[in-house]
Amino acid sequence: MYNDGFGMKVKLYSYWRSSSSYRVRCALNLKGIEYDIFPVHLVKDGGEHRTENFQSLNPKMEVPVLEMDGLILTQSMAMMDFLESRYEDPKLFPESPTLRAKAIELCEIINSGIQPLQNLGTLKTLEAFYQIDRGQWPDWIRHWISLGFKALEVQLAKRTDPFSFGKRPGVLECYLVPQVYNANRYELDMSPFPRIQKIYDRCMQLEPFQLAAPEAQPDAE
Amino acid sequence: MYNDGFGMKVKLYSYWRSSSSYRVRCALNLKGIEYDIFPVHLVKDGGEHRTENFQSLNPKMEVPVLEMDGLILTQSMAMMDFLESRYEDPKLFPESPTLRAKAIELCEIINSGIQPLQNLGTLKTLEAFYQIDRGQWPDWIRHWISLGFKALEVQLAKRTDPFSFGKRPGVLECYLVPQVYNANRYELDMSPFPRIQKIYDRCMQLEPFQLAAPEAQPDAE
Repeated sequence: MYNDGFGMKVKLYSYWRSSSSYRVRCALNLKGIEYDIFPVHLVKDGGEHRTENFQSLNPKMEVPVLEMDGLILTQSMAMMDFLESRYEDPKLFPESPTLRAKAIELCEIINSGIQPLQNLGTLKTLEAFYQIDRGQWPDWIRHWISLGFKALEVQLAKRTDPFSFGKRPGVLECYLVPQVYNANRYELDMSPFPRIQKIYDRCMQLEPFQLAAPEAQPDAE
Repeated sequence: MYNDGFGMKVKLYSYWRSSSSYRVRCALNLKGIEYDIFPVHLVKDGGEHRTENFQSLNPKMEVPVLEMDGLILTQSMAMMDFLESRYEDPKLFPESPTLRAKAIELCEIINSGIQPLQNLGTLKTLEAFYQIDRGQWPDWIRHWISLGFKALEVQLAKRTDPFSFGKRPGVLECYLVPQVYNANRYELDMSPFPRIQKIYDRCMQLEPFQLAAPEAQPDAE
């Protein structure tokens, strides 16, 4: 069991269907780090992420939040970087600076290029600002996933490794798997993205990804 | 002059008002790296970023694109990481893993939390999908900048360094300055964000930020 010297286990504030939380669950599982899940319900009663208590953890009112080593971190890319420096093996990032930068680039296509445009907060803002109701959300969601996946597929198709950057899954798989989960949830046609689909299928054979899945979470509904 | 051994200078495909391009100009200037700007006009004739030529550089059809060491990179966070590994001094990231993770966290509040929701591509998609025309864009833009800046201000106000992480500007300033530029462009009231404003004002005294400003670019209009 991970122990930070103060007898504290790693804490992850998470929501089962939050794709950013799902990423960090994948990374913790790949690294073999034990952690306790603290569920934060994003829907019930206007959302537990809006409570004063939770805002003191994350003023941006979002999951995930990672608490370890006396440090409170938000933003999945910051968590990936910290987990990599804190636990050397197995590596999540490629070791060559060039491939490392490429891995970050492809993560960001999802992290900044897809997810922020189709997460629940954005959809609710579309509704509040412009009365775009939930019946219209799936088209918007599929648009952004498809646009990002087109660029990802072109870049990933240039590489022939079983996973995106080698023989084992790493940081990009932690972003890819939750985004494909969302694509499936909103019935995006995945046939234009065979390389992404193949990597997803390989990941879903592996326990770290199976245990990170939304349906495997204590707060799954 | 930077030389990659093939006699190639660093190339930055950039648009003067693109805040992601602006970030990378700041970083290159802070590191003292010489580079050539290749302007890509995002507005004229439907956008030069949509041409086949540009898509072969970046299938996601976005600036900036950085070309160096025979490597083509998109996504500003990937560029920051690569520039840091390629040019040690001056450092853009804090050296302690904890502060480094905090710096990435705060960059991501802008990189994934603000900018994607208010960039030109998103605004045009709002117009195409829901007929939200340009007269309605400023309220939407101010909403997202304000939401992100509230969280940033809380976190930055805990630190008393002249810049966000020390006595010199680093990676977070490369994100903060272009985002404040956008806030000013859309007349966001900055009075709730005194710490952000102070860091911005300090940066704007410095040549690397002055030379990176949109109005100082060869393609400024």
